[in-house]
Amino acid sequence: MLKEAIYHRPKNNWSYAYDRNTVHIRIRTKRGDVDRVELLHGDKYNWHVKGYDICEMKIFAQDALFDYWQGQVRPAFRRLKYGFLLHGGEERLWLNEQGLQDKEPIHSLYFEFPFLNPADVFEPPAWVKDAVFYQIFPERFANGDPFNDPVGVLPWGGEPTPSNFFGGDLQGVIDHLDHLKRLGINAIYFNPLFQATTNHKYDTEDYLKVDSHFGTNEKLKELVDKCHEHGIKVLLDAVFNHSGRTFAPFVDVLEKGADSPYADWFHVREFPLEVRDGIPTYDAFAFEPHMPKLNTENSEVQNYLLKVARYWIEEIGVDGWRLDVANEVDHRFWRRFRDVVKAANPEAYILGEIWHDSQPWLGGDQFDAVMNYPLTEAILDYAVRGTRDAREFADLTGYLLAAYPQQATEAAFNLLGSHDTPRLLTLSKGDKRRVRLSSAIQFTMPGTPCIYYGDEFGMDGDHDPGCRKCMVWDPEQQDHEMFEFFAGLVTLRSSHRALRDGSFNVLSAEAGSHLLAYTREADGERLVAVFNASKRKSSISVAMPKDVKPASVTTVFGEGEAELRVRKLHVSLPPLGYAIVRLV
Amino acid sequence: MLKEAIYHRPKNNWSYAYDRNTVHIRIRTKRGDVDRVELLHGDKYNWHVKGYDICEMKIFAQDALFDYWQGQVRPAFRRLKYGFLLHGGEERLWLNEQGLQDKEPIHSLYFEFPFLNPADVFEPPAWVKDAVFYQIFPERFANGDPFNDPVGVLPWGGEPTPSNFFGGDLQGVIDHLDHLKRLGINAIYFNPLFQATTNHKYDTEDYLKVDSHFGTNEKLKELVDKCHEHGIKVLLDAVFNHSGRTFAPFVDVLEKGADSPYADWFHVREFPLEVRDGIPTYDAFAFEPHMPKLNTENSEVQNYLLKVARYWIEEIGVDGWRLDVANEVDHRFWRRFRDVVKAANPEAYILGEIWHDSQPWLGGDQFDAVMNYPLTEAILDYAVRGTRDAREFADLTGYLLAAYPQQATEAAFNLLGSHDTPRLLTLSKGDKRRVRLSSAIQFTMPGTPCIYYGDEFGMDGDHDPGCRKCMVWDPEQQDHEMFEFFAGLVTLRSSHRALRDGSFNVLSAEAGSHLLAYTREADGERLVAVFNASKRKSSISVAMPKDVKPASVTTVFGEGEAELRVRKLHVSLPPLGYAIVRLV
Repeated sequence: MLKEAIYHRPKNNWSYAYDRNTVHIRIRTKRGDVDRVELLHGDKYNWHVKGYDICEMKIFAQDALFDYWQGQVRPAFRRLKYGFLLHGGEERLWLNEQGLQDKEPIHSLYFEFPFLNPADVFEPPAWVKDAVFYQIFPERFANGDPFNDPVGVLPWGGEPTPSNFFGGDLQGVIDHLDHLKRLGINAIYFNPLFQATTNHKYDTEDYLKVDSHFGTNEKLKELVDKCHEHGIKVLLDAVFNHSGRTFAPFVDVLEKGADSPYADWFHVREFPLEVRDGIPTYDAFAFEPHMPKLNTENSEVQNYLLKVARYWIEEIGVDGWRLDVANEVDHRFWRRFRDVVKAANPEAYILGEIWHDSQPWLGGDQFDAVMNYPLTEAILDYAVRGTRDAREFADLTGYLLAAYPQQATEAAFNLLGSHDTPRLLTLSKGDKRRVRLSSAIQFTMPGTPCIYYGDEFGMDGDHDPGCRKCMVWDPEQQDHEMFEFFAGLVTLRSSHRALRDGSFNVLSAEAGSHLLAYTREADGERLVAVFNASKRKSSISVAMPKDVKPASVTTVFGEGEAELRVRKLHVSLPPLGYAIVRLV
Repeated sequence: MLKEAIYHRPKNNWSYAYDRNTVHIRIRTKRGDVDRVELLHGDKYNWHVKGYDICEMKIFAQDALFDYWQGQVRPAFRRLKYGFLLHGGEERLWLNEQGLQDKEPIHSLYFEFPFLNPADVFEPPAWVKDAVFYQIFPERFANGDPFNDPVGVLPWGGEPTPSNFFGGDLQGVIDHLDHLKRLGINAIYFNPLFQATTNHKYDTEDYLKVDSHFGTNEKLKELVDKCHEHGIKVLLDAVFNHSGRTFAPFVDVLEKGADSPYADWFHVREFPLEVRDGIPTYDAFAFEPHMPKLNTENSEVQNYLLKVARYWIEEIGVDGWRLDVANEVDHRFWRRFRDVVKAANPEAYILGEIWHDSQPWLGGDQFDAVMNYPLTEAILDYAVRGTRDAREFADLTGYLLAAYPQQATEAAFNLLGSHDTPRLLTLSKGDKRRVRLSSAIQFTMPGTPCIYYGDEFGMDGDHDPGCRKCMVWDPEQQDHEMFEFFAGLVTLRSSHRALRDGSFNVLSAEAGSHLLAYTREADGERLVAVFNASKRKSSISVAMPKDVKPASVTTVFGEGEAELRVRKLHVSLPPLGYAIVRLV
């Protein structure tokens, strides 16, 4: 066995409470190198009397280099001492805190999960697994109230620029709730709604007021109430990393400099506030002088932002927050934020905008989930760009599965596009089969999927501002087939618990192949999802586990023909086709 | 290069803020496998304009399998995007968030240290590096006031049992401060002082009152004030995991069961509280019914314990807390605890009792340090038990160096014995050379050393209760030579900043050898510590780095003869001997 490949370190994604009774323990070995791993575990205070129990670990994920094994224990007294016994051919190795051992070590040197304290259990809201999100960029969704339009508003449907306005507003969303109901989504993520100067509103002027071009706080309350009547949750965008240029405290510091009572609300390197050689004398989002970074270590700033967090939940009824530039704000603030938000609504969803490795925020003390851009890239590379084969797709998603606690994966926010990326159809160079193929993967992977407004009507658009076009409401210009596809996907997901929180296992992902197959399973229902990322018709045969003796094989979604032949599931797929097959 | 050996994951011990301006980045490779590692880093918001800078990483630690490399960056705008370029022979590999790459990847896929927020910087109190602790088990240190003796007190110096009393008290400590001053220590760690029924007082009855057999709160204040006059800090033991059987809230629950207003102060599995088949119907420390686990998730319990934490700092002036069974209390509580303690005294030291891997508590949000038992074991195995050779010692200490942020290592609490272990002399089977050898290592390693009361007079004693004998005050029975040795060690450490916060590098630690050499260096002063764990006279030659051209070579402590011969430092050591050599 390759010793250098073997890795375990307590907590984070390697040992964690999955719920108030269950601990997950994981270990990594070189791919294909180790035959069996036994988890030896017991209570450290009676190990000398009772010895240990053994849990046979299973490979739950693989990547290019490694197998990842997981075992599950429900310790009677919520305390766990544990070690690993690895078998590779005739060789046996024990792993404890002092490293790999050729002989069985004494238990006192084993690893510890000292106590399963409920306060430390990472518990994302249960509803998130059952949600399908829909992202709305408010200025571009629908103009329901022309009386609140900004000066110089352009006719709906014009070419978007970084600075123009088309009059989208909250009334427009209310007017089109029927569209969202027909699509079947049950959660909306809104880009910022608060008073600001830009069309994207990421430069907040007033955190306690809906932008006057979008409506009023009362209008948002009406919207939220109507959404709730229809079983739709509402997530707002919390831009707490920085304010806008016109935020009153910042204006005060601009005017009064170090004498302003708000001088410590920002990170000022040098007074006066100005821009020198393109760089502000204060910290900002990127180097953007109109977005001064807030000093979230100042207790007044904290109290103000926490009041904001509470207000929209308690007074307006929103169901959670998406946190903009979440990785640049201090962890200490986010911990307080979580306490406040969960006190206001224990079922609120806290979603961080983090594009990279996010374990430091997903320990249960900060966020419930992050925007899962690494999965976005894996899906796009495999199904849209064609730059990653099935094996490479499985390797990257395997790595992601292993990188986080299971509950973080289950609550992950899976998206294929947003206001910050080109649209899916544009990335697909107009090939709608690729839109469908990639979306079918998105909707059948663990984590909650999100549809970017307009994708369901076949809208295109490149990077900002192209991806922020006005929603197409003219039926003539809508792609109704695409709408039916997305509505079908939503129905598929809501009809099968296996897709929402079932187990996930790769069945086939060969190097050099464009054919991918995985299963999702829950409550005895097994779904096999099969994808063909090549431009040629292809078929795949995957061996069924011994315990599977399906009486019926049905393609519940997609275009493939599936049948069972001598313990193998055989699926034929058209070019860039997919099939979700149900075995019962 | 062995790909499976290469490891980096942002935050924890792999990338962290060392101070408010400096980020440390580390990576692991197979030992001896990689020639060079370059850290490629830049600001993600101007990388496209300015590109990246390169920091040449250095191996700062090694263990049996791996080299650990570290680089240091002071990012101008406190933001860091970074990747690694590894060189092994002709081979080059880049490491980014997607794994190892054969070609230079685009910067957006590199790792991030998104923002160096001061609130997240782990800053242990600066005084800890300069401290030498002395641990006092109060019932056994000195009886200064016979009027507060417990009923049935035994004559000083009798055989200790788990339950007998000898009358040690706070007045006894005050009376012997001169002893501590002569020894030179500048910090005391007291085992529990609060009202309790046992001799060890880990079964707290009243958290706000000094045990009546030890004295009064006023007496403790007098003691603390006197200590401070002499530049001695005072650390108390916070037994917050569990209370004692006689703690009033627990007594109330025993009496009233579920009807008690304190019913939720504990973790009751089933009422009534009783012991069935040796197991309490409530959670306890181990299975000890007299030590019921406190429910630190209950806000009343939190507020009570936090009041306790504050009271002894604010009213009595203590300088920090040692946290008993710290790993079994929830992280959430410890985060609040840190906030409260640091608000009361930003320089307070928070020391957790954790015997195993402690990274989850050493991220800057909970503890400043833990009791460094893994180092204890390494030193004892090498210098006392003879079960670990120099290479194995260096491997384990190398692993520990790499396992934590540097500031955690610098503030670690390094001990060779305590009230929970046999005494050092007993482990050494009476061989005082081994006591000196191991202590010389303890005092020259990074971290703050602690002397267990009486070791300085050559006291022996096996596991509890043997290690809790009465302090020997009869000069006839004291080992004065040992006292001079320890006083000398304390002076050595206080005289050389290199030993307190200098760099640490292993110079020689061969497999199969009992000869160990390492350097500590600061402010241009270089100390070489050399140890001989064999029973034979030995000598060692270690090559000096090219930049070292010492004009003088002096043995500042120990028994070795040192001289410089053609760029090599040559040291002769007696059996079980040691030398601390100064090169200037």
